Amino acid sequence: MTPINFRDKLSLIPDFWQPRVVAEMNDYQFKLVRIEGDFLWHDHAETDETFIVLDGTLRLDFRDGHVLVGPGEMYVVPKGVEHKPSAEKEVRMMLIEPRGTINTGAEGGERTAQNDLWI
Amino acid sequence: MTPINFRDKLSLIPDFWQPRVVAEMNDYQFKLVRIEGDFLWHDHAETDETFIVLDGTLRLDFRDGHVLVGPGEMYVVPKGVEHKPSAEKEVRMMLIEPRGTINTGAEGGERTAQNDLWI
Repeated sequence: MTPINFRDKLSLIPDFWQPRVVAEMNDYQFKLVRIEGDFLWHDHAETDETFIVLDGTLRLDFRDGHVLVGPGEMYVVPKGVEHKPSAEKEVRMMLIEPRGTINTGAEGGERTAQNDLWI
Repeated sequence: MTPINFRDKLSLIPDFWQPRVVAEMNDYQFKLVRIEGDFLWHDHAETDETFIVLDGTLRLDFRDGHVLVGPGEMYVVPKGVEHKPSAEKEVRMMLIEPRGTINTGAEGGERTAQNDLWI
């Protein structure tokens, strides 16, 4: 019976763009991630994806615009919608998505992180 | 393309123990709620339930112990586990649960909030 402390968990993540699972709810996972710089364009054909920002300002680019998500804010990217996350300075955030969701969607490639790693 | 700001949304909730939906991800809902005092013992037979605390200290009592959840912390109550949320002073938090989940589980009664109200 111990709560999950986001700051403590984030301090255990050494690298950017490497999500780590901290909790599960039914078949969904809560992942913490540190990011900086640009990610690649991708989408998730099977699921919406939730971003909750803890520190910094996340930019999500879409093909028809963009949104800035700051601390204490969230955004849900609908399934099938192409998006490109980026961060001018470090962003610490939570992702919520079904177990098995890959960070690069169907794009694959060298930016694909190992999935289902817990801290 | 507007992020959901927790502080702004919470300022629109006048009453304690009245969750309000702010976003959906697939068939799950994100609800913000202000609480103070004691709730009733209940469980959710069909689903886990996630608590993310934004302000204050949430106490979750279980039949065999309790946990304190502070700002920047979360806790997932497994499905079927009886729990009693309470807050000595006001707590502002997010609940994540499948659409249709009732705040009192199967207990019902006067503490049952209207479900699926958005802000």
